[in-house]
Amino acid sequence: MAQATVAFQGEIGAYSEEAAARLFGPKLRVKPCRDLADVFKAVEAGKAEYGIAPIENSLEGSINQTYDLLLYSQLKVCHEVIVKITHCLIANCGVRLDSIKAVYSHPQALAQCRDFLDRLNGENIPTYDTAGSVKMIKGKNLTDSAAIASERAAQIYHMEILARGIENNPQNFTRFLVLSKQDSPPTGSDKTSLIFSTKHVPGTLLKALEGLAAQGINLTKIESRPIVGKPWEYNFYLDFEGHRTEGRVQQALENLTQNSIFVNLLGSYPKARGG
Amino acid sequence: MAQATVAFQGEIGAYSEEAAARLFGPKLRVKPCRDLADVFKAVEAGKAEYGIAPIENSLEGSINQTYDLLLYSQLKVCHEVIVKITHCLIANCGVRLDSIKAVYSHPQALAQCRDFLDRLNGENIPTYDTAGSVKMIKGKNLTDSAAIASERAAQIYHMEILARGIENNPQNFTRFLVLSKQDSPPTGSDKTSLIFSTKHVPGTLLKALEGLAAQGINLTKIESRPIVGKPWEYNFYLDFEGHRTEGRVQQALENLTQNSIFVNLLGSYPKARGG
Repeated sequence: MAQATVAFQGEIGAYSEEAAARLFGPKLRVKPCRDLADVFKAVEAGKAEYGIAPIENSLEGSINQTYDLLLYSQLKVCHEVIVKITHCLIANCGVRLDSIKAVYSHPQALAQCRDFLDRLNGENIPTYDTAGSVKMIKGKNLTDSAAIASERAAQIYHMEILARGIENNPQNFTRFLVLSKQDSPPTGSDKTSLIFSTKHVPGTLLKALEGLAAQGINLTKIESRPIVGKPWEYNFYLDFEGHRTEGRVQQALENLTQNSIFVNLLGSYPKARGG
Repeated sequence: MAQATVAFQGEIGAYSEEAAARLFGPKLRVKPCRDLADVFKAVEAGKAEYGIAPIENSLEGSINQTYDLLLYSQLKVCHEVIVKITHCLIANCGVRLDSIKAVYSHPQALAQCRDFLDRLNGENIPTYDTAGSVKMIKGKNLTDSAAIASERAAQIYHMEILARGIENNPQNFTRFLVLSKQDSPPTGSDKTSLIFSTKHVPGTLLKALEGLAAQGINLTKIESRPIVGKPWEYNFYLDFEGHRTEGRVQQALENLTQNSIFVNLLGSYPKARGG
């Protein structure tokens, strides 16, 4: 893939940047952003060709903020990337495990390492970013503190790994979407994502879904998010196998459109390994 | 309803306690709990007859922690209660709006009042509870700080309301489930909640749902949560209209069971007004 600027949330060494490196390789030019909304804005404004957004974690579930940002965005999904999350306890060189009094990381990473942290019995301090916590500990040269982040973050900041694979459950994967102004051409093994809402009458969700089943299309994910200002009405987010240029997908989309009051086709993209 | 002990998360005056008061009236005996898991434990251990758990907010969506606790619990859902969330800025008596330098509340309440807080331009400090923040400000007699909580919290702690209805969007409702060891008898206007998971093969989710449609049953909510240890497999949470003792519901449940590998019937309960 040609050299590209890729926007992501967090500091260099964040799991989002790992997802970008996995897809774009060594030619990666990165644009770290303070929050997810800035990732979307960077791509919309043409300051980055691609943006990376976590959409789902295999332990925690959907990342609601990404779902909500997709609703109001004109961006397309052009890739998905799955990254295995392996958390490490990272400290300045020479610091020993028994001198650690405080552990800094993103609240989700702290939660995923709860058993290890309970045994360590220090103070757990939430921050906005995993790799950013490593950077902070290095910058302040703290010798009684550690951060939880990826092995990649330890390498980038030349820090020591005190413990590796400290998460409670090793079946820990995050699925990232890659956003751009265009989706991807068909490869023969593709997925399509879209958002739709149905009329608020009984049975319409099922009717909308039946159009996919009638074409033998395999639904891989369904997620609902509330419609702001309309209590107990929902937008539905679907992922299914197939490319929007395939005849059976076009048939299903036509049927879905007839049974919906709103459809936003987010795009088609190659299916990731393990996805 | 007879006198009952009701466990809820947060301090006296929390929105969860308001939901309890709405349902159980003046005879309410309350058991405040530090976190949601303790609410479930209190009812399971017989220390409270009922527990209150927020399940869904009309702006933010599902409360994942409640969904995950339901999965591993033997408790039944016996009621639902819908509370309109109206946030107030609350301070000690005599404190003026222009002397407020810091605002304390639950992160979700702070987020829902973002426009008001931006204009106020003080520091926003996240806490674990809305009513607990009012109690803390009163206990420390802070005169440069306020809390965001309900009008009820202001009354209970005898504090002043500096501003009322400060949320960005007034269509702000939270739906609470009431948990007990038994569900409720039929009233003629009921809902049923359950959790199920399907075999990991194409089309099974739709097949499971079609049994409900075939009986003319109206699905009011579908939510998916990841199965821990099985990446990209899900448990589905359904709410639908009808009581589990009705013939058409029994037919649909039988069909659902045949197309599922796991079904946990959470129970049937009277449908709330506005639900």
